[in-house]
Amino acid sequence: MTRPFDLLVRNARTLFTADGPGGGPAEQLLSPIPRGAVGIQDAHVAWIGAEGDVPRESVAASTRIVDAGDGLVTPGFVDSHTHLVWAGDRSGEFALRCAGADYLSIARAGGGIASTVRAVREASDETLISLALPRLQRLLAQGVTTAEVKSGYGLDAETELRMLRVIDLLGSRQPIRLLRTFLWPHAMPPGSTDREAFLARGQKVLREVARAGLARFADAFVEEGAFGQDELRPFLDEARALGLGLKLHVDQLRAGQGAEYAASLGALSADHLESVGPEGIAALARGRVTAVLIPTATLVLRLLRYAPGRALIDAGVGVAVATNCNPGSAPTENLALAMSLSCLQNGLTPAEVLLGVTRRGGEALGDASLGRLRVGGPADLVVLGAPHLDHLVAHVATSHVQTVVRAGRIVLRSDANARC
Amino acid sequence: MTRPFDLLVRNARTLFTADGPGGGPAEQLLSPIPRGAVGIQDAHVAWIGAEGDVPRESVAASTRIVDAGDGLVTPGFVDSHTHLVWAGDRSGEFALRCAGADYLSIARAGGGIASTVRAVREASDETLISLALPRLQRLLAQGVTTAEVKSGYGLDAETELRMLRVIDLLGSRQPIRLLRTFLWPHAMPPGSTDREAFLARGQKVLREVARAGLARFADAFVEEGAFGQDELRPFLDEARALGLGLKLHVDQLRAGQGAEYAASLGALSADHLESVGPEGIAALARGRVTAVLIPTATLVLRLLRYAPGRALIDAGVGVAVATNCNPGSAPTENLALAMSLSCLQNGLTPAEVLLGVTRRGGEALGDASLGRLRVGGPADLVVLGAPHLDHLVAHVATSHVQTVVRAGRIVLRSDANARC
Repeated sequence: MTRPFDLLVRNARTLFTADGPGGGPAEQLLSPIPRGAVGIQDAHVAWIGAEGDVPRESVAASTRIVDAGDGLVTPGFVDSHTHLVWAGDRSGEFALRCAGADYLSIARAGGGIASTVRAVREASDETLISLALPRLQRLLAQGVTTAEVKSGYGLDAETELRMLRVIDLLGSRQPIRLLRTFLWPHAMPPGSTDREAFLARGQKVLREVARAGLARFADAFVEEGAFGQDELRPFLDEARALGLGLKLHVDQLRAGQGAEYAASLGALSADHLESVGPEGIAALARGRVTAVLIPTATLVLRLLRYAPGRALIDAGVGVAVATNCNPGSAPTENLALAMSLSCLQNGLTPAEVLLGVTRRGGEALGDASLGRLRVGGPADLVVLGAPHLDHLVAHVATSHVQTVVRAGRIVLRSDANARC
Repeated sequence: MTRPFDLLVRNARTLFTADGPGGGPAEQLLSPIPRGAVGIQDAHVAWIGAEGDVPRESVAASTRIVDAGDGLVTPGFVDSHTHLVWAGDRSGEFALRCAGADYLSIARAGGGIASTVRAVREASDETLISLALPRLQRLLAQGVTTAEVKSGYGLDAETELRMLRVIDLLGSRQPIRLLRTFLWPHAMPPGSTDREAFLARGQKVLREVARAGLARFADAFVEEGAFGQDELRPFLDEARALGLGLKLHVDQLRAGQGAEYAASLGALSADHLESVGPEGIAALARGRVTAVLIPTATLVLRLLRYAPGRALIDAGVGVAVATNCNPGSAPTENLALAMSLSCLQNGLTPAEVLLGVTRRGGEALGDASLGRLRVGGPADLVVLGAPHLDHLVAHVATSHVQTVVRAGRIVLRSDANARC
């Protein structure tokens, strides 16, 4: 006899699986099911379809029901780019920036990443964890069930490894699935100028990271004023050889053929891309590299242009949308704001935005089971108190998340139909 | 013997009264008191000063204590420009706008204000109330204790009067103090082209509004494509003669000497101002007209420039910051987003932003008791889970409100130190 569902999500106006056949427009990839329902067993999706077709024998007295209240049901959101473990306080930089200071001048004045590095090195593991937990709670309230989290505020072997272990601990202390990225070439460590030695040390640490399974991805800040493509190549080549997926910060502040570089390395994702040009876009498309848009950082850094999301999608590039949650250029967990901005400023449609925080987010993390709802996949989903997708982006910077289910468990419930 | 406080707010890192002597910079106007405390009796501020100086005899067993948790205490926020009573759904316009449609082309296609007017006319009072209450709840969670609310989605006598009565009812159904504005010249009613007759009808309704005390202010959308200055003058002159304060939508989409017009009419506030020039700024300063910035609308309408907040303040104009919460150009209650944007895009400092949502908001409403904490004034205040003002703007689109006190009553409490 069939085992009953542990959980059944019903009364959805529309269920988006984001698991439609590839190659089509966003609406097709989202694969909407009117009045769709999801049955869950053992933390996985056991059944998916129209509510009228739910197998009777799968619903028993023991089946817990989540009523979607005639709203939307989507895969749990995937925030594919964050730096959410940090200590210290850089909110003063925000005011400086508003008064005209730019990113690199703040960094040269001892602010920026270096100031966070000093604070993280001094912070205990428990301090880092207690500071990160409320950030994760806010991300969860935005519907995030999977987040990528980068190291990169240690910039020495001890602190970088410690950050990766802290992220692992955080994964067990709250519901969001955390995937770790080793970001050694984030900035030169404070007081250090020997770039070659720093990157060589990074390769040593990289081997330890790979050996101990401390990260799934490696990342680098590829930018004039940060790190150059040639000097990074040994580190990134070795990361790839060790089986880590590559995710790269490219073409953010200035056009620098970073997209082409990411494609040449077979990177999973190229992130930022405010200054990418047509050749870079074509390279990403050819290389099947996911573009990760981070419009909150474009806003906060007051950059003159947003990444060309429309052109990227029109060229066939998969486009994800992420918060970049970090202490400097994107101090916010408000994914709903990133979603609104990606429509307003990157030219995405509401359907493309939903795809960007679900399936495309999973692809940016090299895992096609994330950000989709399909039988056998993880039962990570959100119920949204909205009648259609336009609401999610038009109600600016406002979360419509009512219920979050992660691995089949209800991990967040809200009475309000929307919160800001 | 002295009566004890009903409520004592203590353990503030800094208390900002926003009641400092005029004429100075924002920091002086905010008048910070380190380790400040507020004693409340009968819905009013009874005592204010350093916590060490709290009169012992004013604290009894019956005194309720609000612990500010070493955070900030400020006057309750004043949202001095909203249109938060509406029915219908214009979220589809957002997607159109992102795809390139502009404000006036959406209006010409039957969207925009006219579409809301049709929905409001069809909605019952109870529908309007039930739709507005969650919006007010979201504003409250942003720390708003006073909001201006406009009519302007009726555009006929019956519905305009009904909107003003609905706003009055809403004022009694939730904690935020609502001040009403009669906005007849918002748009031409659907299907109507006789501008002179419409404005003449408006004057009749205006007299009824004034006679019945249904609004404190009158407003008009002064803009090419909306209403011209000459045709509006009889309506606005009469509104002023009837004792209503004037608040005007000016210089939003195109430079049109709207600021000069507002100053010539002795308006309380000139709102929007994206396109104001140096002469308009000088006129506002001379006329002591408060400028109300609405950067969320600038963002959503994808206008090319934000209002010159920095230049306005440097010229001596008082500058308020508001949400504009409405169904089209600013569909959000996220005041924290408006605050962040007013730094990033209008050039305000964090202190000027706090002033903009407190004292300047009160001035935009012609009431110097609002948005300030002073003995004898209303006990409307917020406790913010932040160590200093920079956090309020740098943590983008995120509310730090932990406790809201309105007329001496605790009307909202949150455990989180920040929410988005």
